[in-house]
Amino acid sequence: MAVKEKEKIMQSALEKANILVEALPYIKKFSGKTVVIKYGGHAMLNTELKQAVMTDLVLMKFVGINPVVVHGGGPDITGMLNRLGIESQFIGGLRVTDSSTMEVVEMVLGKLNKEIVSFINQLGGRGIGLSGKDANLIMAAKKLGKDQADIGFVGEVENINPQLLKTVIEEGYIPVISPVGVGQEGETYNINADTAAGALATALQADKLMILTDVEGILADRNTKESLLSVIQTEEIPALIEQGVIQGGMIPKVECCVKAIQGGVNTTHILDGRVPHSILLEVFTDKGIGTMVK
Amino acid sequence: MAVKEKEKIMQSALEKANILVEALPYIKKFSGKTVVIKYGGHAMLNTELKQAVMTDLVLMKFVGINPVVVHGGGPDITGMLNRLGIESQFIGGLRVTDSSTMEVVEMVLGKLNKEIVSFINQLGGRGIGLSGKDANLIMAAKKLGKDQADIGFVGEVENINPQLLKTVIEEGYIPVISPVGVGQEGETYNINADTAAGALATALQADKLMILTDVEGILADRNTKESLLSVIQTEEIPALIEQGVIQGGMIPKVECCVKAIQGGVNTTHILDGRVPHSILLEVFTDKGIGTMVK
Amino acid sequence: MAVKEKEKIMQSALEKANILVEALPYIKKFSGKTVVIKYGGHAMLNTELKQAVMTDLVLMKFVGINPVVVHGGGPDITGMLNRLGIESQFIGGLRVTDSSTMEVVEMVLGKLNKEIVSFINQLGGRGIGLSGKDANLIMAAKKLGKDQADIGFVGEVENINPQLLKTVIEEGYIPVISPVGVGQEGETYNINADTAAGALATALQADKLMILTDVEGILADRNTKESLLSVIQTEEIPALIEQGVIQGGMIPKVECCVKAIQGGVNTTHILDGRVPHSILLEVFTDKGIGTMVK
Amino acid sequence: MAVKEKEKIMQSALEKANILVEALPYIKKFSGKTVVIKYGGHAMLNTELKQAVMTDLVLMKFVGINPVVVHGGGPDITGMLNRLGIESQFIGGLRVTDSSTMEVVEMVLGKLNKEIVSFINQLGGRGIGLSGKDANLIMAAKKLGKDQADIGFVGEVENINPQLLKTVIEEGYIPVISPVGVGQEGETYNINADTAAGALATALQADKLMILTDVEGILADRNTKESLLSVIQTEEIPALIEQGVIQGGMIPKVECCVKAIQGGVNTTHILDGRVPHSILLEVFTDKGIGTMVK
Amino acid sequence: MAVKEKEKIMQSALEKANILVEALPYIKKFSGKTVVIKYGGHAMLNTELKQAVMTDLVLMKFVGINPVVVHGGGPDITGMLNRLGIESQFIGGLRVTDSSTMEVVEMVLGKLNKEIVSFINQLGGRGIGLSGKDANLIMAAKKLGKDQADIGFVGEVENINPQLLKTVIEEGYIPVISPVGVGQEGETYNINADTAAGALATALQADKLMILTDVEGILADRNTKESLLSVIQTEEIPALIEQGVIQGGMIPKVECCVKAIQGGVNTTHILDGRVPHSILLEVFTDKGIGTMVK
Amino acid sequence: MAVKEKEKIMQSALEKANILVEALPYIKKFSGKTVVIKYGGHAMLNTELKQAVMTDLVLMKFVGINPVVVHGGGPDITGMLNRLGIESQFIGGLRVTDSSTMEVVEMVLGKLNKEIVSFINQLGGRGIGLSGKDANLIMAAKKLGKDQADIGFVGEVENINPQLLKTVIEEGYIPVISPVGVGQEGETYNINADTAAGALATALQADKLMILTDVEGILADRNTKESLLSVIQTEEIPALIEQGVIQGGMIPKVECCVKAIQGGVNTTHILDGRVPHSILLEVFTDKGIGTMVK
Repeated sequence: MAVKEKEKIMQSALEKANILVEALPYIKKFSGKTVVIKYGGHAMLNTELKQAVMTDLVLMKFVGINPVVVHGGGPDITGMLNRLGIESQFIGGLRVTDSSTMEVVEMVLGKLNKEIVSFINQLGGRGIGLSGKDANLIMAAKKLGKDQADIGFVGEVENINPQLLKTVIEEGYIPVISPVGVGQEGETYNINADTAAGALATALQADKLMILTDVEGILADRNTKESLLSVIQTEEIPALIEQGVIQGGMIPKVECCVKAIQGGVNTTHILDGRVPHSILLEVFTDKGIGTMVK
Repeated sequence: MAVKEKEKIMQSALEKANILVEALPYIKKFSGKTVVIKYGGHAMLNTELKQAVMTDLVLMKFVGINPVVVHGGGPDITGMLNRLGIESQFIGGLRVTDSSTMEVVEMVLGKLNKEIVSFINQLGGRGIGLSGKDANLIMAAKKLGKDQADIGFVGEVENINPQLLKTVIEEGYIPVISPVGVGQEGETYNINADTAAGALATALQADKLMILTDVEGILADRNTKESLLSVIQTEEIPALIEQGVIQGGMIPKVECCVKAIQGGVNTTHILDGRVPHSILLEVFTDKGIGTMVK
Repeated sequence: MAVKEKEKIMQSALEKANILVEALPYIKKFSGKTVVIKYGGHAMLNTELKQAVMTDLVLMKFVGINPVVVHGGGPDITGMLNRLGIESQFIGGLRVTDSSTMEVVEMVLGKLNKEIVSFINQLGGRGIGLSGKDANLIMAAKKLGKDQADIGFVGEVENINPQLLKTVIEEGYIPVISPVGVGQEGETYNINADTAAGALATALQADKLMILTDVEGILADRNTKESLLSVIQTEEIPALIEQGVIQGGMIPKVECCVKAIQGGVNTTHILDGRVPHSILLEVFTDKGIGTMVK
Repeated sequence: MAVKEKEKIMQSALEKANILVEALPYIKKFSGKTVVIKYGGHAMLNTELKQAVMTDLVLMKFVGINPVVVHGGGPDITGMLNRLGIESQFIGGLRVTDSSTMEVVEMVLGKLNKEIVSFINQLGGRGIGLSGKDANLIMAAKKLGKDQADIGFVGEVENINPQLLKTVIEEGYIPVISPVGVGQEGETYNINADTAAGALATALQADKLMILTDVEGILADRNTKESLLSVIQTEEIPALIEQGVIQGGMIPKVECCVKAIQGGVNTTHILDGRVPHSILLEVFTDKGIGTMVK
Repeated sequence: MAVKEKEKIMQSALEKANILVEALPYIKKFSGKTVVIKYGGHAMLNTELKQAVMTDLVLMKFVGINPVVVHGGGPDITGMLNRLGIESQFIGGLRVTDSSTMEVVEMVLGKLNKEIVSFINQLGGRGIGLSGKDANLIMAAKKLGKDQADIGFVGEVENINPQLLKTVIEEGYIPVISPVGVGQEGETYNINADTAAGALATALQADKLMILTDVEGILADRNTKESLLSVIQTEEIPALIEQGVIQGGMIPKVECCVKAIQGGVNTTHILDGRVPHSILLEVFTDKGIGTMVK
Repeated sequence: MAVKEKEKIMQSALEKANILVEALPYIKKFSGKTVVIKYGGHAMLNTELKQAVMTDLVLMKFVGINPVVVHGGGPDITGMLNRLGIESQFIGGLRVTDSSTMEVVEMVLGKLNKEIVSFINQLGGRGIGLSGKDANLIMAAKKLGKDQADIGFVGEVENINPQLLKTVIEEGYIPVISPVGVGQEGETYNINADTAAGALATALQADKLMILTDVEGILADRNTKESLLSVIQTEEIPALIEQGVIQGGMIPKVECCVKAIQGGVNTTHILDGRVPHSILLEVFTDKGIGTMVK
């Protein structure tokens, strides 16, 4: 090899070393902490993003941080419902989860769950896929729609039994959780994945809750990315909702963050899942990305 | 209450106590031992039988025996394939498991898996549902059909990583396992549930392997139930196959038993899953039921 | 075997299985709990009853419940005193326990203690016989008789040091305890076995205290067994004593139950030791037998 | 206080310190080791000697050595047999242990056992009294007399189950053991205390076995104490027996030492129990006292 | 050996045994307790005294007491400063510890530290030498002299991180500590050894703090040793200082004791390090030696 | 912030994330492994290099790799000897380590040792400084010079007692070790730091031994850096020495590597300590730097 080339290699190696070294303070800071990640949206669809998320999880585990994944199911569920010709009834604009829909939801989530686990294992991690039914992890109760409408097997979290999670985290596994809840009589409930992630983060007294979304975060002005709010305090939120800065689907996500913080989670984050390694960037850089709610 | 009635109650209570006392030697004998149960067939379809099996599992766990369940999926898989209009190709009489079939298999098994878990939890046990993908529990490789035909994602067990199972058993959980294997590249394989159960029993050095079937056991004369062979030795098997006493679908089941015994499992049992509490009867009575291969 | 006969066997086996299954809720309920049993009276004299009690203890231990036995000595002590020609002095109707009497009491209790232990071991349990002297388990002080009369080495419990018991229970042994206490100066005291059992149940924070007696329990009308009071509340007791429903030797037993409940024991039971398996029936049936004081 | 007096006090304190310091190498040498002591003879009868032995045991435990006591019963047994008017039959010069004799033996041993325990506890140790029946510690079988004569419930050690002992030693207790064995059917056997001590020392892989006797040790010339043999090798023993140097009751004691050494015990000692603190002197001085068999 | 001689040996052995036995109550009393010893002055210079101190430490450890040593450096430091021609500046009568002085202090302390460790190891203990820098054991901050004068790298204890000490004590080591502190920026501070010992005793919640000095203790009348105050209460101290009974270099030592007691140390002792085995005498005799501050 | 700037920041963040991700396979590979590093030469003198080495150590520890440092003392020792006017005698070209020289060596090493520890702690690691005297870590014996010349307190490693190291590594500390050995009589020996590092790597069954030097590694042609031999096999070494490729001071280093490999160390490395982060580059890149001996 020519001298020049060698020097170039060495130069690049040193740059790499320096970047590793820069990560040290973050590794120290989060060592032994638990981070719950709501994984969904684009980051589940795009192969490259998926790969990036999985790598981030495995890397975190190896440097001593404990990730817990709660995933959604989105388009695959709709796809399967369509393939099976199951038509959904809507009450007050909400899809009713009847028993055959619930069965499809559970099946699709189960398949996605094991896919994620398998991906983690391929990368050298040790994933374990669970649903809220395992060891009664997520106990749930029926949730009513608007005007007390019966919207079927949609549930809200009643109680989290985190002992199994604690055991598997302690033993070095990365738990991947389907947001399926179980009722007092063993009935199955569909739980919103953001809510499930928040409840689990609280029960585990996680240091961070990260919600991967398909937006940059919360923008002061919806039209310019530059207006991203890096940090918002829980007390500013009512005003931001009133002003329409936080609106639509973002409202429940933010409420979920607030509840987690009130429950003892240190910081919560609305991240842009479309950016590769957004999880890693959040953990390993000072500024982070997206919006932190604290 | 009249005196007579009271005496009757007391009489019946004493009979109950005596039966519990009769169970003591069996409880002592199997205390701390692991029993792997292949759960399938009628016992999965009939609600009453299902209830009986689940109760047997929970009871075993409470009296200090460690059950591990490996379940099949049978009719539900076919049903879902039909509903989705997935037609199967057949090579040499064997159904080819292409990727869309495999996806359905995995989804249906996943749903059944959590159903079993939930049933166990309802009865006061602590079930946890796993597939061979979790923590790479069942590593598998592609299996070829007759004449080296490619029959798709049908796998054979290459390696069992039992550490996760040992941890959850030790922590008091009842593991329920879908017979899905994972390949070196993360690909999914359909594994025969009997084979998976046998391999897991070996890897766990289980005391017993029980295969629930829809027949009485092995009959010397297929036409009379009275000809049930209670015990057969592994060395008698080749002759029994040649004589046609062991035939058809029973052959791989028996071979699976032989392999487990050679791998260190103490006894293996072909049980009649149509009899309620057949598992309990096998563990808690001297004669047992069905055919023991040892 | 004829088909009929086989069917009969199977039928009976299924009945057995059903009874085991009925026991499950009780096994779950008392799993890991400690039950202190005062063993005395007829149940110690009759061989068949003795066998039944010992079996109950071993069975409980195997299904995860922790029995602790405190035994009396009754007739054997009197027999030995007679054989040795030791005449007892009586003050105010109470037998004075002088040092030679105490020596006999201790010896006879010691012999009975090891007999019980040996019986437990024969049945597959792991018994260990202790007296209040071992590791200062029962620290006692001199108790005076009526009008402050000196009645010799009769003691009352001053303090229980339960550490040794906790260790042996944890390690899987069934402790069998002679109600002998030890004073500050190492002197030996005879302790009432009911009282010792109550004090131990309190110190161990047992779930149940069971006192085996030679009566049905507490009868509202002494003349009819049908008048058995299944449950009495501690607050009803003063009235029941005044009415003469609770009287004579039953009064201290009931007081002992009250004290245990005040000390944190969950339920206490006056059982009929003349009924075989009364302990098991109390634990494994809804109604129980005898009188529960709670 | 006068200066002189003070200096004297200080002088004596320094001498004490020096003696403690001299003990250090022995403390180091035996730290964590187990020493089995056969306690019997004069040392059990004389109050002062008893006190000295008990103190030695407690001191050893506190400095990190683990004593295990096996005691005899001697004169107390004969006394009680006499008081009860039980006459012994003799066959071939050996007392026959019939069942009523055995009962007395067990009772008296039990009483002595708890006396020793209580003494240890008074001195600040934590004694626990066991017999060979506890957790089947000493399994025994019937031993025949000369010419196969039936001499009743005299047993020989068949098997030691040392787990219970290991647990209580580890937890800081000093076990005190009555040499009572238990047979396959639960029958009680009288075991020679020396033999029991030897078998326990072997099962515990003790560092030392010490047998307290009422003689100086083995004397080359029975008439002069100065002829004490400080050390004898196991291979010298047959000759010494032939010469009559080892004779009578000393022969089984020496054989018991030889067996223990062959079983892995490091050294065995025939000590003069009439010398106060003979145990301590053996452990904490170079020369030791009595005769060491190795 | 002549009989007389033998008897003499035996006599002396018995005396030794008695002295060991007398130590038992003290061994019991301090079993498992931590004792912090400030080691300095004559006891570090005189070979015989050094040997005595080291033996005391090892003996304590073997009988279950946990010594922790903090040593000074005294004359060796001055010697090395002289050899290196480093002249000290004095401000307000206090030597200024500039960086080159600090370097010498640390080097000399380090050498002495390992000498002590090696001595302990030679005697069969397991010493481990640490400075306040190890695992940030002693965090310190700059201390100013009189009138806020800058006296260089003289530090006061800010915080003790005792975890490392607890680990090594638990694992059976004797920690030996140089009184060197470390600042927030990693700078090195010279800490007064008495102060360091007091702070460590507090952080470890030691039972005793012993300060070895070159005087008898606190004398009521400086001119007569007989006037030694065996015990002083912390509340008497201000008066004693005012009266000049406690004066000069003794004042900070006594203040250090007071602070330790206020911090939860049970007793503190000003001992005469010139008396061999003064540590042992303090622990193993009733009167102790020197002055106890409590 | 302008959009461009933001994009730049994000770009750079992504590059950082990618580099972290690239490190994952190495982190996985060495997770839980022990790496012994001989630290000396330029890397100890240059502040920037020192900082880089310390950061590498702390980073390794945080990502789950266990570094153990053995350091030299070089110029500081000579400097101090000069300052103290200690002149060295030379025998056969070797400096004789007399007792006053040894004292200086030990003091200077001790000071450097705590400097390294303090540096590690400043960076958030938990360093602990030890010498071979602590818990008799490095037992040594006198080494003779050429022609059996007495060269004073130069020692060779006789035995390593790694228990203390294992404990502190397990508890999360980074041990830093001065290459000082201790003889049977407690005498101090100067040990070559490369040799000490090799012996410790062997005793700890380390995965890697890294020797930091002031050269690029082993060059096939001393005059061109490009001729660096990346890997040499132990069997090639004799020829390379004969050819003069390995010569002078490199010979003992290479021999030390060979010995470590024969002792079970996986790979050994001669690294260029003048390159910043050479340790990290060796662990976290495929090619590594310097010469690997395996």
